[in-house]
Amino acid sequence: MTAPSYAPLPFAEVAMTGRFWRERLDTVLTRTIPSQHAKLKEVGILDSLKLPQPVPPLTIPRNKHNFTTQIFWDSDVGKWIEAASYALSHRRDAEVEARIDAIVDDLARAQSPDGYLNCWYNGREPGQRWTNLRDNHELYNAGHLLEGAIAYYRATGRRRLLEAMERYMDHVAATFGRGAGQKRGYDGHQEIELALVKLFRLTGDRRRLDLAAYFIDERGREPHYFTQEAIARGEDPAAFWAGTYEYNQSHLPVRQQTKMVGHAVRAMYMAAAMADLALLNADAGLKRACEALWRDVVTAQIYVTGGLGPKESNEGFTEPFDLPNETAYAETCASVALVFWAQRMLHLDLDGAYADVMERALFNGALSGLSRGGMHYFYANPLESRGQHRRWAWHVCPCCTMNVARLVASVGGYFLSTSENAVAIHLYGGFAASPTVAGQRIAIRETSDYPWSGDIRIAVDPETPTEFALKLRVPGWAQSATATLNGQPIALATERGYATIMREWRAGDVVTLALPMPPERLYAHANVRMDAGRVALRRGPLIYCVEEADNPSAPPHRLTLPRAAPLTAEPVDLFGGVTMIQAPAKVLVAGDGEPLYATAPPRSRDATLAAIPYFLWANREPGSMQVWIAEAVEPV
Amino acid sequence: MTAPSYAPLPFAEVAMTGRFWRERLDTVLTRTIPSQHAKLKEVGILDSLKLPQPVPPLTIPRNKHNFTTQIFWDSDVGKWIEAASYALSHRRDAEVEARIDAIVDDLARAQSPDGYLNCWYNGREPGQRWTNLRDNHELYNAGHLLEGAIAYYRATGRRRLLEAMERYMDHVAATFGRGAGQKRGYDGHQEIELALVKLFRLTGDRRRLDLAAYFIDERGREPHYFTQEAIARGEDPAAFWAGTYEYNQSHLPVRQQTKMVGHAVRAMYMAAAMADLALLNADAGLKRACEALWRDVVTAQIYVTGGLGPKESNEGFTEPFDLPNETAYAETCASVALVFWAQRMLHLDLDGAYADVMERALFNGALSGLSRGGMHYFYANPLESRGQHRRWAWHVCPCCTMNVARLVASVGGYFLSTSENAVAIHLYGGFAASPTVAGQRIAIRETSDYPWSGDIRIAVDPETPTEFALKLRVPGWAQSATATLNGQPIALATERGYATIMREWRAGDVVTLALPMPPERLYAHANVRMDAGRVALRRGPLIYCVEEADNPSAPPHRLTLPRAAPLTAEPVDLFGGVTMIQAPAKVLVAGDGEPLYATAPPRSRDATLAAIPYFLWANREPGSMQVWIAEAVEPV
Repeated sequence: MTAPSYAPLPFAEVAMTGRFWRERLDTVLTRTIPSQHAKLKEVGILDSLKLPQPVPPLTIPRNKHNFTTQIFWDSDVGKWIEAASYALSHRRDAEVEARIDAIVDDLARAQSPDGYLNCWYNGREPGQRWTNLRDNHELYNAGHLLEGAIAYYRATGRRRLLEAMERYMDHVAATFGRGAGQKRGYDGHQEIELALVKLFRLTGDRRRLDLAAYFIDERGREPHYFTQEAIARGEDPAAFWAGTYEYNQSHLPVRQQTKMVGHAVRAMYMAAAMADLALLNADAGLKRACEALWRDVVTAQIYVTGGLGPKESNEGFTEPFDLPNETAYAETCASVALVFWAQRMLHLDLDGAYADVMERALFNGALSGLSRGGMHYFYANPLESRGQHRRWAWHVCPCCTMNVARLVASVGGYFLSTSENAVAIHLYGGFAASPTVAGQRIAIRETSDYPWSGDIRIAVDPETPTEFALKLRVPGWAQSATATLNGQPIALATERGYATIMREWRAGDVVTLALPMPPERLYAHANVRMDAGRVALRRGPLIYCVEEADNPSAPPHRLTLPRAAPLTAEPVDLFGGVTMIQAPAKVLVAGDGEPLYATAPPRSRDATLAAIPYFLWANREPGSMQVWIAEAVEPV
Repeated sequence: MTAPSYAPLPFAEVAMTGRFWRERLDTVLTRTIPSQHAKLKEVGILDSLKLPQPVPPLTIPRNKHNFTTQIFWDSDVGKWIEAASYALSHRRDAEVEARIDAIVDDLARAQSPDGYLNCWYNGREPGQRWTNLRDNHELYNAGHLLEGAIAYYRATGRRRLLEAMERYMDHVAATFGRGAGQKRGYDGHQEIELALVKLFRLTGDRRRLDLAAYFIDERGREPHYFTQEAIARGEDPAAFWAGTYEYNQSHLPVRQQTKMVGHAVRAMYMAAAMADLALLNADAGLKRACEALWRDVVTAQIYVTGGLGPKESNEGFTEPFDLPNETAYAETCASVALVFWAQRMLHLDLDGAYADVMERALFNGALSGLSRGGMHYFYANPLESRGQHRRWAWHVCPCCTMNVARLVASVGGYFLSTSENAVAIHLYGGFAASPTVAGQRIAIRETSDYPWSGDIRIAVDPETPTEFALKLRVPGWAQSATATLNGQPIALATERGYATIMREWRAGDVVTLALPMPPERLYAHANVRMDAGRVALRRGPLIYCVEEADNPSAPPHRLTLPRAAPLTAEPVDLFGGVTMIQAPAKVLVAGDGEPLYATAPPRSRDATLAAIPYFLWANREPGSMQVWIAEAVEPV
């Protein structure tokens, strides 16, 4: 905790000016967020806020464990308010505000006199509140509503929802804790901790932070709350449908956890909150726990796309190096939440290794969840497909849809951070911001066509000459980066992923950074048995994939790439202009007459392999796709 | 139907004298079959025959569709009687016969006056018989009891169970058919057709064959019986838990089926019965249907082990070339039933291609279902494992246990066939038999250490000099086979997999056949994407696998085999003497410090790869296993 402490610049203070993010942001603001409101209306989620409501009939969508997804609907509303409020931070919109206010009306009416606010329980099972924290998402819903309330207040200054949620948090704080008459409970699906930290940051009310810390530290203690709670419901705790408390990371107190287990989104929200608390409470023990979990994830449990959680049945983690491609679950929400966690780790400890993972998850596993058109979604993000995976117009559990929307709508918040006398730039792609450093407002304008190009120009314009450190991230993937200052080459002293330029900055100073982006091969660790004999392609921060649409001569599974084949990168006129990777390859011949098994390997003929960025797959006609491409074996 | 018609020699007339099958047969006779009786007792299956019985409580084992497996228990009893009777055919045993007679007592008491015999319905739901053919296995159970009855009669001459089952079949024939007042139903799980054909072969009673033909031909016709039956039960036919009538191959009339779909065991039993009926009724249309389904299976849907059915959820087929390794279902019963089908195809048309598949399924996918000790079983037979797959001492659905037992106990029946003036030998490994050919008894003694060696000696001893054709199978895997007759080399004129030696045979004639067995690589079709860049090893009829126990330097997934590496085969002192395949290989290094993804491929070091026959895997300490081994890619 002795290193200088960095804080991210709020996204509303970072104008996105580059081609890549401008396009994604415009799509989300003009298409995704409005269409999500229409979907929330269409599927009954908005109407469900109007109490009283009957318990839904059995025909309502249920997940595979026979839970109605309606029990999570408050969270979907909260997340939409949050995403829509981020849009308002870019540009106020009376119509959107009226829609949010209508929701706030319903929520205000739904709130109990004691502050409790949950539309499922208040409307449908009024006597049953706080009886099943393990499964029924009450605190998770509260967290998302609170995040929505904070975002709406920040965008508009309107306090009604925020005040309602503060009353609710007062009630939660009175209900849960270690005091006499309080429940020693915590959330079955972590999330509220992140929201409480945000509320603390907004209001400075220390009780919010303490409540978040209580939830984190109470988790997994014995006697186990979920066990006692199940007994109180008259249930056998051993009959827990998920089979293990690893599912919700309550198998051990969090400080004793060293392996990332269970449901990936819960795990990521928890880890992000742990990092928040480690920073705000200067809690070295919690920081060490975060670091151990991080190490476990990055050394053995993360997909090359930044996806997390290979298995569908627990929507989560399995065992080290178990990274199947076609059946990868890799939920969009998990990659979104990994961006949250990585950003918080970066602010605990300014190390480019965290920024590398943040960038990879953002550009690949998270962005892949949203279609180019902005109105279709992936919940799971496989790394291989026979064409059976198509984006959904909506999902019975629409968590991912609004998660990717809120991430993109606030993406500027991940670009730069400040400490007392330094500015650290983590991401590139065109932004303008004027952070205050060393007591001065410093206008910074970054111009580039990143991620398509690594040629970056940064104009630094302090109001008055100011000495501070400009720290530029040199991504882990960038070999032989070079820089200039006011046209003169400078040596890049890169330490832990950041090159520091310490000087008295003056108006008109310009730094350029050149990050060469040759297309490259990536190989997986020898223990990833699914990727043995396979290779992935990367250029800059983008992981590529081979999609059938670009390879009409053969489906991707029949393309093999010789190890010596040169890779070339060319801009192409596709999806508004992207860079494609091409290589001379071999197509294995699969004629009708070929036997299923033979002593001779399949014959091959020459072909060109064409790969596009992974996040753009499944935006054209259905077809197969592979991230990990078989390497060609030379004939003997 | 113009080719000479071959019939298999009954297994009881074929003495197994070779090392390989003698060991398997002794194990099954002395350990497997007796221990299965103890298990049937222990788990309550034998007691369940003592009626009346209550409907079992909800704690009884249920499968994932919430069916109690007890509804299939009659079939388990029938299959055990069949296997035990095959043992009696080798050697009578008063104790075993007393056990079977005790079961027969219970079955006789359970039989209704009208002949109906089903312990579930008679004991537990007496008013509900024949109301759910789709799911409840009544005709399947009847088929297995009938096969048991026939086997017991053949082994001992005792008729009581056979007569009871004939009365039951009279009842079934009266109940089902196209006549007035009959149900147009058929079996949800095919099996009874095979049993009825056996009963026809035993008794010559044509009605049995006609009933089998009715069941086959009625299947899949419109209006669909299972639809009507579901409506009659007050159920929505569209709510069928399996989702599609492809599951039980009733989606189309069988003669219109060209793709093998659905539950693999049902499909195989059906196809085997179709081949029986095609032969016995000289039904060219049914033969064509069999051939189309065969082509589909062997060109796109069979594992290299002879396993069938990649998917667990339907225990069956998916789509062409979908052959995942670690999650392969490849139920033991399906490979056993493929042996049945292949043998019947071979007798429709003496083509070595059928014998090749029969042999492959027998020596690999079927035998792998039984442990070396004879008392543990695989239900699923994956081609890759991280060590999580272990043999079961029993299974909640014990179908496979008795299926492999009855196959091994009767394996001699697959070795040779006769026509009027020919003997065809399909399998080698040591047998003695005296079939009647051209009106003469011909003593034939085959001596070899097959499958470990391809050096085969066949002594032919007719009682008097007799002219007939000796047809020796030259397996598809055998290149450059050679032969001698009475010490003199002879030219092998091999046609469709059989070399014919037509002559007047005299006592003392000896033929030798040399089938070279170099260890070989096998490659999968380019459309089998799971096996891209991988290679399997074969020697003679045996498919090999790399098991951790023989490769202590690295788990199999880190071993890679250079394409040019020579393969050697050596007898080793393991499992009583087997031939191991070895090769110089490369081990990919997986140190703790290796990154999960890197631009350089994993480093490798030299190692020796050691492979054992697939059917023997998982007989030692738990560990990982792979059939398909990654090929090494040469460094650039």
